[in-house]
Amino acid sequence: MTYCVAARLHAGLVFLSDSRTNAGVDQISIFRKLNVFERPGERVMVLMTSGNLAISQAVINELAQHDQDSAESIWRAPSMYDAARLVGKAIRTVHQRDAQALAEQGIDFNVALIIGGQIRGERCRLFQVYAAGNFIETHDNCTYFQIGEAKYGKPILDRVMDPNTSLDEAAKCALISMDSTLRSNISVGMPLDLLVYETDSLRVTHFANIDEHNAYFQMIRSTWGERLRQVFAEIPDPMWSNPKAEKSLVPPDRVHQPVRVAPNGVEADAYGPAQALAQSTPGPQRH
Amino acid sequence: MTYCVAARLHAGLVFLSDSRTNAGVDQISIFRKLNVFERPGERVMVLMTSGNLAISQAVINELAQHDQDSAESIWRAPSMYDAARLVGKAIRTVHQRDAQALAEQGIDFNVALIIGGQIRGERCRLFQVYAAGNFIETHDNCTYFQIGEAKYGKPILDRVMDPNTSLDEAAKCALISMDSTLRSNISVGMPLDLLVYETDSLRVTHFANIDEHNAYFQMIRSTWGERLRQVFAEIPDPMWSNPKAEKSLVPPDRVHQPVRVAPNGVEADAYGPAQALAQSTPGPQRH
Repeated sequence: MTYCVAARLHAGLVFLSDSRTNAGVDQISIFRKLNVFERPGERVMVLMTSGNLAISQAVINELAQHDQDSAESIWRAPSMYDAARLVGKAIRTVHQRDAQALAEQGIDFNVALIIGGQIRGERCRLFQVYAAGNFIETHDNCTYFQIGEAKYGKPILDRVMDPNTSLDEAAKCALISMDSTLRSNISVGMPLDLLVYETDSLRVTHFANIDEHNAYFQMIRSTWGERLRQVFAEIPDPMWSNPKAEKSLVPPDRVHQPVRVAPNGVEADAYGPAQALAQSTPGPQRH
Repeated sequence: MTYCVAARLHAGLVFLSDSRTNAGVDQISIFRKLNVFERPGERVMVLMTSGNLAISQAVINELAQHDQDSAESIWRAPSMYDAARLVGKAIRTVHQRDAQALAEQGIDFNVALIIGGQIRGERCRLFQVYAAGNFIETHDNCTYFQIGEAKYGKPILDRVMDPNTSLDEAAKCALISMDSTLRSNISVGMPLDLLVYETDSLRVTHFANIDEHNAYFQMIRSTWGERLRQVFAEIPDPMWSNPKAEKSLVPPDRVHQPVRVAPNGVEADAYGPAQALAQSTPGPQRH
């Protein structure tokens, strides 16, 4: 598996990827997932991949194989929109070649990509490309995209990231998001690739390959966890039955009752499931 | 969808569930998922459900329909292990009755349950029961179980929860875990059911049904987010190129390079995917 996150801020772009791939739990290795297409002074494009590794690699090879002066070359794309379109097209080429054979082995055509960057004359742009080759772009109300194991690290992004976040803060936020994911999911692993792109620089200026000895990431790991536990300890515990407590869990004038299941033939005050069934409506199944 | 979390501490048990169910995004309603089987002074058992709502409700009805004095009644189970076994048996009964018809509609037999509690003469115990009716029990190195949308709220549990956590702190931790999940996933929703069970009380003493007006949960929501942002701001930003910086992201004597994709026919120092392909091994697909 994978975890990649990218954000588009007013100040530029931040990209962070892990580097673990696995086939089951007994074949784990390191593959870097952050790929740079750079022509200094003219364009920087960053492509991050997740999903089936053979598909991701085929897509990158498809993109790279065009002669750089051909109209279909990502090096010639006049805009990031066109670059994203070419990534989508490469996915469709691979799909056409491989999807049937994969399906015959019961394997989904599973790939997701993030491409972002800047081409001279245009602003910074960031896209997420789906396995079908179509894609979406970030905007100010949706500053970031994630691919792979996205859920563990989403809460901190939702709380911190907005378009005015500075590049350094966004990089810090992405690293904390990654730290939470690394701790809770062993299919995501070090080292990490971090690339921070400042609007209009049109070259790679800030890149780090972060392994477990990296001093800054070690500081984040220990400080964040420690301060989190400290903040946790400072939040008042729930007060159950103090009628004077302003922030009581159960207001002093109330009694809350759980749904109780009564034995067969015995009356219960609130037998939830039977009541609830009466509300069912036809249509898709509820979860 | 659903998010439920339960923990077994030395001091007792904590159970927390949301109450949202949905079929697609246009059929959203409230169904309580925390069910109590209580015989004060003798046993308290708490059953939380996730998955297909019709299956969950059928399982609870199966459990409740036995005469309370029959040998198969959960009210007579001599141990929590036997209670978990009866929950598994009820799932298998429902599976036998419904799974085929569901499969014909392309619907998985999707259900997951948590059952925990205490029966007089035994310690507190906590189990997670799978759709196949088999189950696992917590132990001191794995204090909690989650069902449903578990990933968003896992990092805070991993950082805070251990067997020595007090019941109040565990309840607070579960509520923060729920808050993170609520913010990041709209298939999880208020109100919440929180039940805290103190070892050997053998009755329900601490229960709250928490809606959006609940003063304590409002305090958690605002304080946690605010303090998190404060801690975030206090952590130093990455330093890219300060040779004196002790915790520099890139050590002053090093240059880190990303994987660069070169245009066709152009040499690149490090062209990752092609190198990486050479390491491939046969077997399952990598992700």
